[in-house]
Amino acid sequence: MPERRLQEVRRHLENARLDALVVSHLPHIRYLTGFSGSNGLCVISRNRQFLLTDNRYRDQVRDEVDGFRLHIARASLFEAARKFGVLKGVHRTGFEAQYLSVAAFRNLKKLFPELLLAPTHSVVENIAAVKEAGEIETIRRAVAITDAVFGRIVEILKPGVSEMDIAAEIGYWHKKLGAEGDGFEPIVASGVRGAFPHARPTMKKIKKGELVTLDLGCRLDGYHSDLTRTVAVGEPGRKARKIYRTVLDAQLKAIEAARAGVKNRVLDGVARRHIRQAGYGPYFSHSLGHGLGIEIHEPLRLSALSKDVLAAGNVVTIEPGIYIPGFGGVRIEDDILVRKQDCEVLNNAPKELLVV
Amino acid sequence: MPERRLQEVRRHLENARLDALVVSHLPHIRYLTGFSGSNGLCVISRNRQFLLTDNRYRDQVRDEVDGFRLHIARASLFEAARKFGVLKGVHRTGFEAQYLSVAAFRNLKKLFPELLLAPTHSVVENIAAVKEAGEIETIRRAVAITDAVFGRIVEILKPGVSEMDIAAEIGYWHKKLGAEGDGFEPIVASGVRGAFPHARPTMKKIKKGELVTLDLGCRLDGYHSDLTRTVAVGEPGRKARKIYRTVLDAQLKAIEAARAGVKNRVLDGVARRHIRQAGYGPYFSHSLGHGLGIEIHEPLRLSALSKDVLAAGNVVTIEPGIYIPGFGGVRIEDDILVRKQDCEVLNNAPKELLVV
Repeated sequence: MPERRLQEVRRHLENARLDALVVSHLPHIRYLTGFSGSNGLCVISRNRQFLLTDNRYRDQVRDEVDGFRLHIARASLFEAARKFGVLKGVHRTGFEAQYLSVAAFRNLKKLFPELLLAPTHSVVENIAAVKEAGEIETIRRAVAITDAVFGRIVEILKPGVSEMDIAAEIGYWHKKLGAEGDGFEPIVASGVRGAFPHARPTMKKIKKGELVTLDLGCRLDGYHSDLTRTVAVGEPGRKARKIYRTVLDAQLKAIEAARAGVKNRVLDGVARRHIRQAGYGPYFSHSLGHGLGIEIHEPLRLSALSKDVLAAGNVVTIEPGIYIPGFGGVRIEDDILVRKQDCEVLNNAPKELLVV
Repeated sequence: MPERRLQEVRRHLENARLDALVVSHLPHIRYLTGFSGSNGLCVISRNRQFLLTDNRYRDQVRDEVDGFRLHIARASLFEAARKFGVLKGVHRTGFEAQYLSVAAFRNLKKLFPELLLAPTHSVVENIAAVKEAGEIETIRRAVAITDAVFGRIVEILKPGVSEMDIAAEIGYWHKKLGAEGDGFEPIVASGVRGAFPHARPTMKKIKKGELVTLDLGCRLDGYHSDLTRTVAVGEPGRKARKIYRTVLDAQLKAIEAARAGVKNRVLDGVARRHIRQAGYGPYFSHSLGHGLGIEIHEPLRLSALSKDVLAAGNVVTIEPGIYIPGFGGVRIEDDILVRKQDCEVLNNAPKELLVV
């Protein structure tokens, strides 16, 4: 793993007067150490770093991890941490308050009664929000796979095919084209169901004249892609075309405005204002986008309430939508890389309304 | 939802001298209320029951839930709990210590400073461990889908097909045959990779003469199936056949011994002794099985360390295995329903060694 990540954790330790950080959230462990197993605990102190896992991962952890002291636990990972003296000399340690359960916290306290445990927030999240060149390369590959899957889906979209049929094909092609699999359960919402932004695919068959919203993404080497397109199966009519145009223009305006230094809430406002001026304000019922990388939803939010500012190296989604109860919905989403003077759209899937 | 579940929670409240239980773990919320959304909070007091979610689920929650007071939160669910007076009159409330994060706990404490918060363990888990008739019916349907998927996979298993190809087909067919999708990332481990009990599927191509371990399951209406079979692609040889026979006999003996009243560790011992007597003791490196239902791994464990006793209505897996480094592995797994005098094997997939 790049040395930068450990350095940034240690800079935080210094600023927060901590002797160590206990990392328990698995995507963070993977980010810091490279280990992709399902059970692990990472401890980073001022001058040492440890990774603990269990016997199932004895070989894998050696393959995947460099530069960490490795320990194989026979019982719980916290007990192993004590046995191997992983927190020796540490007086005050941070832990990930949003991810450590109360039960685990109580267990940690019992095993290390002398330790001062300080809740931390977003330490690893903030480091991971700025992507390194290698990470951007991986995200590009994940995005390219999902773009290719979208191309295949367009070929089989037709009246009579069910939403579940399409969801099954999405998962199938993500794996066939080289991803670990779906990064999240895909959304396939046709006709009036398109009015629900988070509709799960059902046995409902797609009918002629319907809009179909497809929201899909994969996981590749621990990184995610996230793409939404809305496709018309047969001519959808004037109202649908007007809504589509409005969403697309809102998305293009936000992309045009995205660059380092722009406040997230300002960017959200750019898309929201366009939709409001077209008369659909109340129907854009979610925020503009979210951070993307080691999690499908990273904490960076493009919303009216956000206090964040975009930085070069952030990867975020831009995904305005209009959802009209009883009619249907349109959402268009790309993944973008924020740069100093502008942003780069990572997706290549077509954005003009496709009528299949 | 069956009234029994609420009654059992309230019996626990009484025994533990609690005025209420705050349920935050989503599978438990689905179990108690029927709500399947991705954001919810359920509060059960001595004589009232509440469910809170956000605006995205306004329609869905009304469709899915009966007999609970429903509230739609505008901000966090805990804030809504305060606003709507959900914990009014409650002095001492339990919370799910294994699932509530320290950050959420601190937030709860801040919003309800007068409340006594008592960590609880396995309250809902213990109720859910004994399945009702309707739940058993759903699990039967989930198991039947996975058996059928296994049948399709056997038809396409041949030299040159990759592990990932097979994993892609498993996910595809789970959805096509009516499940919500894979209940967990399937394991497809061929040849020497079969020695890793939790091997993730890779691009490795299956070769003639190899054993292939397939571990797959689906989720259907919130319930899980879990099936493992080991198949030979071409004649695998005498050693492989001996290992297969040993695992199968160990599994059959454990199934023969499974009934209400048997200690979990005794059942684990039945299979373990058979494998040890055949000379493979050190190569059966995990426990015999686990509870199955609203989670793919429920807390009931069939292991040498377990203090539990089987009860009628438990659904558990029976899955002994032998894993030989540098050679490969065999695991055979069925889902069983524990009955008073015996058990019922829910799977119908063939268990004699298949050579394809």
